[in-house]
Amino acid sequence: MGDQPAATTATFGVDLGGTNLRIAVVDPDGTVVEEQRMPTPDTLDGIVAAIDDSVRALAGLRPGARALGVGAAGMVDDDGVIHYSPNVPAFRHAPVRARLEAAVGLPTVVDNDANVAAVAELTHGAARGYREVLLVTLGTGVGGGVVTRGEVLRGAHGFGAEVGHFQVDPDGPVCACGQRGHWEAVASGTALGAMGRARAAAGAAPSVLAQAGGDVDVIEGVHVGDAAQAGAPDAVELVAEYALQVALGLVGLANILDPELIVVSGGLVELDDVLLGPLRSAFAGRLEGAAYRPDVPIVPALLAGHAGVVGAAVLARGLV
Amino acid sequence: MGDQPAATTATFGVDLGGTNLRIAVVDPDGTVVEEQRMPTPDTLDGIVAAIDDSVRALAGLRPGARALGVGAAGMVDDDGVIHYSPNVPAFRHAPVRARLEAAVGLPTVVDNDANVAAVAELTHGAARGYREVLLVTLGTGVGGGVVTRGEVLRGAHGFGAEVGHFQVDPDGPVCACGQRGHWEAVASGTALGAMGRARAAAGAAPSVLAQAGGDVDVIEGVHVGDAAQAGAPDAVELVAEYALQVALGLVGLANILDPELIVVSGGLVELDDVLLGPLRSAFAGRLEGAAYRPDVPIVPALLAGHAGVVGAAVLARGLV
Repeated sequence: MGDQPAATTATFGVDLGGTNLRIAVVDPDGTVVEEQRMPTPDTLDGIVAAIDDSVRALAGLRPGARALGVGAAGMVDDDGVIHYSPNVPAFRHAPVRARLEAAVGLPTVVDNDANVAAVAELTHGAARGYREVLLVTLGTGVGGGVVTRGEVLRGAHGFGAEVGHFQVDPDGPVCACGQRGHWEAVASGTALGAMGRARAAAGAAPSVLAQAGGDVDVIEGVHVGDAAQAGAPDAVELVAEYALQVALGLVGLANILDPELIVVSGGLVELDDVLLGPLRSAFAGRLEGAAYRPDVPIVPALLAGHAGVVGAAVLARGLV
Repeated sequence: MGDQPAATTATFGVDLGGTNLRIAVVDPDGTVVEEQRMPTPDTLDGIVAAIDDSVRALAGLRPGARALGVGAAGMVDDDGVIHYSPNVPAFRHAPVRARLEAAVGLPTVVDNDANVAAVAELTHGAARGYREVLLVTLGTGVGGGVVTRGEVLRGAHGFGAEVGHFQVDPDGPVCACGQRGHWEAVASGTALGAMGRARAAAGAAPSVLAQAGGDVDVIEGVHVGDAAQAGAPDAVELVAEYALQVALGLVGLANILDPELIVVSGGLVELDDVLLGPLRSAFAGRLEGAAYRPDVPIVPALLAGHAGVVGAAVLARGLV
């Protein structure tokens, strides 16, 4: 990934999420030529058919594009089988690569969506030129991509970099994976929304409640973020508490992985320094031996919503 | 490491711990020809002089040995400078490699002791033939060595695989690194001793107290382990509680790293299935998507007390 030769042809990239499916054709410089979006079909057959249709439609724009990459929300092995995804019931030992190769007729590679996002940032984004990188995506859950020695860490079975799933609190909320007190359960965008609802229900987050039109039940992380961006003290305080939870997990991951750069992605990153400021403050000084080592820069991802399709298209270049 | 050519000459290996200093000459097949041990001197000058004396004494046994490897308790950068060690005050930006090369006159490599132990197990021990391995050492603290794609993960600054230092409990004890509730503080052998003292002080660990000669204050992890090995229910229960703490941390690390094998080392491993049995039980089924992926074997290290000198000697082979 980090050391691959420059690409010379466009490829197709697919971002196969629990909610949305995006298919794009991407130029060698990382430019998204065109992208199609739709709700993710419920079945594997539906997903395969939708990708096939889109690739055929997009192929006219770049007739030289001859490989397909897919980033999928789930645990993907080296054969492109998606074994498990907490949010996509259709992904139970689903042979996504084999099905797509049969339907579309192009060589295909499938990887985990966070790994793919890391490839995108490494090749065309915030991590360009780095070799040891931790990327975390703060969204519905917490995704992760880990780059060591210039390559994405996939682990023994392709299930590596599930960085949201370590215990940070034995009394914490139950995680989507079934275990208690995992980092994801306190550091995801979903968790920020839950903090906002709890605080608003207690009458202590008026600005957040106002952002959500006065209805506690619809408060999500974005409402807390928007109110914080507007400078409301109740929301700023919530973001600081949330940033501490994110930072404590990042400290553990940085002690384990020793990255030279931490890249944060996900919708909340649009808050920029409203989130990253408190996050950097909470992170600083907590690494093991912090006084004797360099601090680790924490920067926002650059490709944002395009990381999935771009990273998948980058992976596909390896097949051309 | 994993893919290096077979060694053809003996090398020197040094295990530079907070308490003990060991210097050995090691044959290409991993055999320790001879080893000298002493308490670790208090100063860098003393350490360098002691290693120099021992290497000269051992050189007569293998005149062909022309390189020196050192595994040290601390954070070691790529230049062999030990920046920080929680237990060795002499190690503050200490240029150990440069000092040893000047004194001993042999090419020298210095790495973290847990990384070195991982190299030893990978080359001559329990992890031979594996490419994705997590090694944890349960001792005074919790050490770690991580192997990805057949090589030890060193991270951007050589500070990687500090696997004891992530939060598992916001209300847990303060760790040696200064942060609260890190895994090391509940999963080290030291923590097992503290559990034994607390339980015995409450009158609820009679067999552990008996192992320690009736003195609560001298109880250490080994007393709990010995009583458990003898089958005493109070001690067996303590070991099970401790094993759960170890397992919860291993689950997190395995979710992050996706190893094909977990190797456990440290003095407690002599308990074998008395510890590893409850540990495997507590680990099983807790990985993310556990129902859809293979379980990870947890095995004892094979080189035990020799892992430091053997691993250091293996690293030195790369200099010959």
